[in-house]
Amino acid sequence: MTTSTALLLADLVGVAVFAASGASAAVAKRLDLFGVVFVGFVAALGGGIVRDLVVDQAPPLAFADWRYAATAVVASAVVFRLHPQFARLRTTVLVLDAAGLALFTVTGTLRALDAQVPPVGACLVGMLTGIGGGLGRDLLTGEIPVVLRREIYAVAALIGAATVVALDGLDRTGPVPLTVAAALVFGLRLVALRRHWSAPLPTFRPPRPNGHPPPS
Amino acid sequence: MTTSTALLLADLVGVAVFAASGASAAVAKRLDLFGVVFVGFVAALGGGIVRDLVVDQAPPLAFADWRYAATAVVASAVVFRLHPQFARLRTTVLVLDAAGLALFTVTGTLRALDAQVPPVGACLVGMLTGIGGGLGRDLLTGEIPVVLRREIYAVAALIGAATVVALDGLDRTGPVPLTVAAALVFGLRLVALRRHWSAPLPTFRPPRPNGHPPPS
Amino acid sequence: MTTSTALLLADLVGVAVFAASGASAAVAKRLDLFGVVFVGFVAALGGGIVRDLVVDQAPPLAFADWRYAATAVVASAVVFRLHPQFARLRTTVLVLDAAGLALFTVTGTLRALDAQVPPVGACLVGMLTGIGGGLGRDLLTGEIPVVLRREIYAVAALIGAATVVALDGLDRTGPVPLTVAAALVFGLRLVALRRHWSAPLPTFRPPRPNGHPPPS
Repeated sequence: MTTSTALLLADLVGVAVFAASGASAAVAKRLDLFGVVFVGFVAALGGGIVRDLVVDQAPPLAFADWRYAATAVVASAVVFRLHPQFARLRTTVLVLDAAGLALFTVTGTLRALDAQVPPVGACLVGMLTGIGGGLGRDLLTGEIPVVLRREIYAVAALIGAATVVALDGLDRTGPVPLTVAAALVFGLRLVALRRHWSAPLPTFRPPRPNGHPPPS
Repeated sequence: MTTSTALLLADLVGVAVFAASGASAAVAKRLDLFGVVFVGFVAALGGGIVRDLVVDQAPPLAFADWRYAATAVVASAVVFRLHPQFARLRTTVLVLDAAGLALFTVTGTLRALDAQVPPVGACLVGMLTGIGGGLGRDLLTGEIPVVLRREIYAVAALIGAATVVALDGLDRTGPVPLTVAAALVFGLRLVALRRHWSAPLPTFRPPRPNGHPPPS
Repeated sequence: MTTSTALLLADLVGVAVFAASGASAAVAKRLDLFGVVFVGFVAALGGGIVRDLVVDQAPPLAFADWRYAATAVVASAVVFRLHPQFARLRTTVLVLDAAGLALFTVTGTLRALDAQVPPVGACLVGMLTGIGGGLGRDLLTGEIPVVLRREIYAVAALIGAATVVALDGLDRTGPVPLTVAAALVFGLRLVALRRHWSAPLPTFRPPRPNGHPPPS
């Protein structure tokens, strides 16, 4: 299997799990079939489209290669049909989302390095590829974006992207090191969810005499 | 009239009706003159800007050709001045929106095919060109995006885009077949609105003992 | 100091003040450290990324030059640490936002003209560069976008962008005229805030017998 085939496969698995996460979120909101497919499509392909616009790959893979859109649509439709078997949709969304975050961060960083984006930029593009789809899904379904919630999320992607950039610098971008990088992001995110790891909060508390949130 | 002139005219009519739909929505939200023009501008040009970024037309037509921005601004300002004559703004928004959806889907699909985007991608780009402006308008005015509501919307655009791709395959992209494709999208959308056609809903119902929506 | 160095410096100052505005808004929403940095990053670099996508500068400066991201991250982290010293965060956000609006409008218009975008398009790109970051910040923190609020905002950017286009036509794009253009935007925005200048409102009032807002 060539690197390019492996990258395509990892991408399509990421598309499928992000589509399933978007579709699950849309089913939980009681959207109809096309709403479910649309949210699944945005969740699956939004991050990659942003990445391709940034590295000037035109048209983006999501439009140039029909297998991307087909994977997103099929995965979303499968979730629409099978969702009664998902006992707890919220957990499903979170685990699939962590898997998509891991896969897209790794493939996004690699594609940015391929397009000659310098190291710091490649980390950012990889992180955005990972978090873009979930951001679109949450904006469409009216949730607070997962990236702004308490548990670490973007920072897991950033650590994974920096790992890929470092591996690339060492010329060690074979399947095994990259799988380790993806597993690192996936593991970090799941442990953060389970242990409620979060970044520091502001220490300042505005006065709130009546217990109301401060005006903003 | 050359094909290119016809495409420009269809585009500008689409810009005008989408600007009017955005401006009507903004007037209904009681925004001021510049808010109305801004929402009209986003509704009119957002879909085309996304399309041009995707097919790597730089700068996008909305910035390269002043007639696009001028049409959007004039149409929005006219709605701002004349809106007391619109008795029922909501209906106006929906009908104008259907017309813009039809025109932008057809012109967006054609431009994607011109830019050598493959058939499946061209359908998606055409659909996104059609639905992008309305999505931006609804996000800015705090409405649930029309594309996620019950009646078919994106699917009407997708059928229209597929029709244009098929006509292109048959080398029949003259004004008459394309007008028929646009009328098909417009008609589908209006009938869907009137008859409340919608896609299938999830069959699963999460338990809701107290009639509250399920936690998500 | 060359023009290009001056443009870079103005850009980085704009990045710092917009990052601080985004971080202040995020601190006011009680987000954690990474949420604060993320919102600061979007506020600081969102407008420029949109500008670079539109003028086909790939990858966008925010990814090609690490000093942009570093400035945004440091400015956001400084606000996170020092915010107890900001007595009134809302005023701070508004003043920093006005400064970022002024700087980004001027540099965005110049970069669009450099990329051969025609005059009307360059005004629009300059305005979007100025307002894009604040729009992203407000969407992420759940505020009504500042650009749609009563006091003039986008129109200050548009006047500034038109001034830069006019100066460019007169071949007077030295540091002094451009600083005057930026000061014009900053001053207009601050005066508009203080005096509650706003654009005309719709004259039409839909019937509201019970004092409820009209259905939309």
